[in-house]
Amino acid sequence: MSAQRLARCRAVLNRRQPDLSVILDHVHKPHNLSAIIRTCDAVGAYGVHAVQKGRSVSVHQHYAAGAGEWVDLTAYADIEAAIAAQQAQGVAVYAAHLSSSAVDFRAVDYIRPCSILLGAELWGVSEAAAAAVDQHIIIPMAGFVESLNVSVAAAVILFEAQRQRSAAGLYDAPRISAQDYERILFEWLHP
Amino acid sequence: MSAQRLARCRAVLNRRQPDLSVILDHVHKPHNLSAIIRTCDAVGAYGVHAVQKGRSVSVHQHYAAGAGEWVDLTAYADIEAAIAAQQAQGVAVYAAHLSSSAVDFRAVDYIRPCSILLGAELWGVSEAAAAAVDQHIIIPMAGFVESLNVSVAAAVILFEAQRQRSAAGLYDAPRISAQDYERILFEWLHP
Ligand SMILES: C[S@@+](CC[C@H](N)C(=O)[O-])C[C@H]1O[C@@H](n2cnc3c(N)ncnc32)[C@H](O)[C@@H]1O
Ligand SMILES: C[S@@+](CC[C@H](N)C(=O)[O-])C[C@H]1O[C@@H](n2cnc3c(N)ncnc32)[C@H](O)[C@@H]1O
Repeated sequence: MSAQRLARCRAVLNRRQPDLSVILDHVHKPHNLSAIIRTCDAVGAYGVHAVQKGRSVSVHQHYAAGAGEWVDLTAYADIEAAIAAQQAQGVAVYAAHLSSSAVDFRAVDYIRPCSILLGAELWGVSEAAAAAVDQHIIIPMAGFVESLNVSVAAAVILFEAQRQRSAAGLYDAPRISAQDYERILFEWLHP
Repeated sequence: MSAQRLARCRAVLNRRQPDLSVILDHVHKPHNLSAIIRTCDAVGAYGVHAVQKGRSVSVHQHYAAGAGEWVDLTAYADIEAAIAAQQAQGVAVYAAHLSSSAVDFRAVDYIRPCSILLGAELWGVSEAAAAAVDQHIIIPMAGFVESLNVSVAAAVILFEAQRQRSAAGLYDAPRISAQDYERILFEWLHP
């Protein structure tokens, strides 16, 4: 292990946001999954909670540009369990969902512990998820098309979270507990 | 032609931004091209200027969710011509490019006529393009991975443009010249 690699890992860990994550409600196309994981790495979102039907979560390492190694991917059997696990820890779950009760995505608070839920490519957010989350959020659309690509929607919201958190100083000092910090550092250095 | 369809076309045209466009410097994967076109439709960016090697621009209509019909796609033989065509009209070209002279993407003005240039999936922005544009802009990265997926980068920047333009009232009244307005309306109604 080189000193340079250790310094790089520390620099990234110092900016990781343990209380910012995404929940994927049956998002299944590998290029979308991978682009989302890559964006999570870029904004320091550490956790990706994914539910997929009948198979394990597969990530296309090429599209993810290797980011799959650097975010913590957890598979859940159903979406209710994934949402409940976050809410039990006091995390607000915001579903990117084009419903009539949705508010503008820039109007919500991403500084508090939160998780962004994204729906499947074709079907969007499931009814079970829409009912269980804390808030629906929407990205305004000024054209003919009703929705964005899911990895695009994820990025637009995650970079709004990055903007709010950056302004609040949340990237300026380590936010991970000392215990988790050492554990993750060890895992990154000994893959 | 139904009255409803006419009203819908007018509502979209009223928000189209004739002075916001993208230039694609050999972006070639159909799912990326299509996601970018879909995002252009969503923020009202009307023009997509694309350069691709040795073949015409192909768009995957499924991924684009039909947006290909609603944005104006122009193919150029080389990137210098695409950039020069914009600059000749007083449009500032901002290249999303991870160079040492790049400024934060939120620090530039998207209210003025501008075009966002994006680089190829593997090679990024070409040297010719990097030299010809008015400014390099960068999306901050807090992780291990050095770049975002190109359609993700396009969306993060275009929605910052949308935010600035929305705050400046540029979506509140038609911005297209009366002549272009009637021409585009005619084309949309008689595809
Ligand atoms: C392609 S969309 C699904 C479209 C689906 N037909 C629907 O009506 O929900 C996939 C996911 O991207 C996210 N998404 C796309 N566009 C969005 C927007 N404008 N606002 C909020 N979320 C969006 C949502 O999470 C959505 O479930
Ligand atoms: C996958 S990247 C190309 C990476 C290439 N290896 C390079 O070094 O430029 C494709 C395009 O997405 C855009 N892009 C990706 N991440 C970006 C970022 N963080 N800031 C600005 N543009 C970015 C740029 O236009 C880039 O040319």
